[in-house]
Amino acid sequence: MRNLTLLTDLYQLTMMNAYLETGKHETMANFDIFFREKEHLEYAVCAGLEQAVEYIENLHFEKDEIDYLRSLGLFGEKFFKTLENFRFTGSITAIREGEIVFPGEPLLTVTAPLYQAQLVETALLNIINHQTLIATKAMKICNEAKNAAVMEFGLRRAQGPDAGIYGARAAIIGGCASTSNVLTAKMYDIPCSGTHAHSWVMSFDSELEAFRAYAEIYPENTLLLVDTYDTLKSGVPNAIKVFDEMKAKGLKPKGIRLDSGDLAYLSKKARKMLDEAGHSDCIICASGDIDEYILSSLNQQGAKIDLYGIGTKLITSSLTPALGGVYKMSCLYENGNWVPKMKFSDTVEKITNPGIKTTYRIYGEDGMAKADLIALRSETFDVSKPLTIFHPVETWKKTTFEKYTMRNLMTEIFVEGERVYKCPPLKEVAAFAKERRAEFWEEYTRLVNPHKYKVDLSNELYDLKKQLTYLSARERG
Amino acid sequence: MRNLTLLTDLYQLTMMNAYLETGKHETMANFDIFFREKEHLEYAVCAGLEQAVEYIENLHFEKDEIDYLRSLGLFGEKFFKTLENFRFTGSITAIREGEIVFPGEPLLTVTAPLYQAQLVETALLNIINHQTLIATKAMKICNEAKNAAVMEFGLRRAQGPDAGIYGARAAIIGGCASTSNVLTAKMYDIPCSGTHAHSWVMSFDSELEAFRAYAEIYPENTLLLVDTYDTLKSGVPNAIKVFDEMKAKGLKPKGIRLDSGDLAYLSKKARKMLDEAGHSDCIICASGDIDEYILSSLNQQGAKIDLYGIGTKLITSSLTPALGGVYKMSCLYENGNWVPKMKFSDTVEKITNPGIKTTYRIYGEDGMAKADLIALRSETFDVSKPLTIFHPVETWKKTTFEKYTMRNLMTEIFVEGERVYKCPPLKEVAAFAKERRAEFWEEYTRLVNPHKYKVDLSNELYDLKKQLTYLSARERG
Repeated sequence: MRNLTLLTDLYQLTMMNAYLETGKHETMANFDIFFREKEHLEYAVCAGLEQAVEYIENLHFEKDEIDYLRSLGLFGEKFFKTLENFRFTGSITAIREGEIVFPGEPLLTVTAPLYQAQLVETALLNIINHQTLIATKAMKICNEAKNAAVMEFGLRRAQGPDAGIYGARAAIIGGCASTSNVLTAKMYDIPCSGTHAHSWVMSFDSELEAFRAYAEIYPENTLLLVDTYDTLKSGVPNAIKVFDEMKAKGLKPKGIRLDSGDLAYLSKKARKMLDEAGHSDCIICASGDIDEYILSSLNQQGAKIDLYGIGTKLITSSLTPALGGVYKMSCLYENGNWVPKMKFSDTVEKITNPGIKTTYRIYGEDGMAKADLIALRSETFDVSKPLTIFHPVETWKKTTFEKYTMRNLMTEIFVEGERVYKCPPLKEVAAFAKERRAEFWEEYTRLVNPHKYKVDLSNELYDLKKQLTYLSARERG
Repeated sequence: MRNLTLLTDLYQLTMMNAYLETGKHETMANFDIFFREKEHLEYAVCAGLEQAVEYIENLHFEKDEIDYLRSLGLFGEKFFKTLENFRFTGSITAIREGEIVFPGEPLLTVTAPLYQAQLVETALLNIINHQTLIATKAMKICNEAKNAAVMEFGLRRAQGPDAGIYGARAAIIGGCASTSNVLTAKMYDIPCSGTHAHSWVMSFDSELEAFRAYAEIYPENTLLLVDTYDTLKSGVPNAIKVFDEMKAKGLKPKGIRLDSGDLAYLSKKARKMLDEAGHSDCIICASGDIDEYILSSLNQQGAKIDLYGIGTKLITSSLTPALGGVYKMSCLYENGNWVPKMKFSDTVEKITNPGIKTTYRIYGEDGMAKADLIALRSETFDVSKPLTIFHPVETWKKTTFEKYTMRNLMTEIFVEGERVYKCPPLKEVAAFAKERRAEFWEEYTRLVNPHKYKVDLSNELYDLKKQLTYLSARERG
């Protein structure tokens, strides 16, 4: 396993050293990772926890790393002594991978001595931000693909090897059926897919020869790419010739792939040609710069596509290439007490939520998710009594639940340095995500102008935040 | 070193296997990597070659990888035998890192047996696409930052660890002065920068105490973050207090960092406050969702910023998160001859350039770059004679050079499996990029509506392409 301990911002180390120098380093602190609402990120699909756990477990400084840090001339001897025996001794709670989450909800909470909590900020954000972003994009794409399966195809356009490897992993969590990425398929035991490229066709004297050769070698997986020369005049007719030959031998051809041109038009024409030739069981696969908006448009046009290969726009989350998740201090243990902390801002939505928190999902009798409630971890709720929640800013907007259940979305991952959580295999995570997804009405996840899902604060948390806001306003005059 | 041999698309392996089955695997082929013009990518800065070279040198299949591939039930025994002793035996030429390049120019060319050339497509594209994208974004940002230095700050928002590690590397090539990423700084011996976060301030009872403690520990690097509570009412006045105390002790405070709010307004106000307090040698650093367009606007407003920290929008190349580079077959060795190949398209700009090529940069007597000429590698040019070039589509647009020099942009990297190129240290690459950048008039690289740099085809290449286009059109009827 790669040692990613130095995968951090320099200021985490200068702060660590400064905490040591001021004797504050052992002060326990609580930090939350959460993201803020922005376009295309009305909701998200949690991903990356497994890699975050691996990172935490593997944290240690090798001698050459300490030597390097010494060479910077910035740090004191206490710091180097601490690094020599460094290991993470804090606690982490998190929302499981595959869970649907909303802006402001703590996705992962670190409770640890200040100097440790500070060190891990950058890598945890990097891992969680990336995979959550791609899992979310994948879910949006798969929602719009309707009944057609989606293959993740983006490795060549991913932002470096890890973006390809872990992006494919996240895409599976978000709902993709397979990936073209062989390394990811091997690492996480998931389906791998793919057939041939234009170069295969170009390496033969004719398209027909190329198709025939391919069908001979892969009689069970003959999905032919038909756009190297001319889709409707050459590609589809040649594919049909080969499919005819295969059927004559009792074989079952798979279908064709369109990779350029007007996919709606070409798919309808190709479908007709295949059907008329007696190949209505052959599928049509489409690829080429597709995202959720193009899928929605293809559906409206009645495109005849059974399978999608989606690359660049999925693997880079092209419309929003960063989740923008942050890691904010929410509590500090001072003089024997946990003291809630808050980062202020002139924009009310940007004021952070203080205290050590968790999130509950409230379900109606129909089993569907109705609202989320961010609460202090110390609070308890009695579901036999009605629960009234209210909007954290527009407080006159209230909802009361009579018959409901609540589910705590957060799970203990590390307790005082010991891992207490076993990450499930990726296939289980993907199945879990699918179940969670089914708990939300489509109105919340539709592409355009989705209905806003309620994420409210508990009374106690709301009061605490109000109190700290007033205190701060008074202090600042 | 991580084994990235399986970092490929499944179809590369199914094609490899099929080339072996059809006996075509040893056929030599030539493939080019190039990118197509799109918004924000009028030019690019080559990057990623060092990692591409490492990838090629390290290519090999481990036993567990072969076992995995066997488990897929797709491949024949010839394939597994070939994998056991696989190594890259082909040749690679490439444009060096730091060179300015344009759409259509081959950035890297692989000449190898078909099955090898196919295998390496995905990872080469992944590496070159990513780093070239980020180096380009960094150059655009540094161009607009004018005399202010730029620190790369984006690790937490990068698309996974590698996107952070190699993105920071590419950012240095593109002109960034330093990175916050400690691992990258160590790996490539480049400057690392950073001071403290809001959490440092929040961990003290007051902002003033936090600043004072920081100044005491880092008297030579006191850059204070002033926006935790209120930039102008609290942050800057507290920083000035600490700077006064430092000066009284004969120390030299460094400056302040603004991380939110209206950076133009705040920087001008803060500059005035610092100057009036006698701290005109203190710098103002700014960060917070900045890109090249915001920099341009800050300059227009006369913002007083000496140093920028740029994160999300640089490390993800937010306006264009993919370079979109492709890898296309351009030649195949058949019956004792190199036969040029071309991928056709109804869009003339999408027709690929056939043959084994290189690119020459044409310089005027002033040493400035005037135009690029893509030519066949076999062509020779006599710079003592005038050279007339013409636009590859609008062929009536001609330019004649009388006194000029030409530089071949491509270098041999591998010759028949042996590496013949030594990758220079990153600092040299960054210096090289700066020199190359200086060869272009600003008109070519300005942010809005840049002047189009000429990239033409040699007569021979143009004729070959025309000939193949007509042949293909005739074949297709």
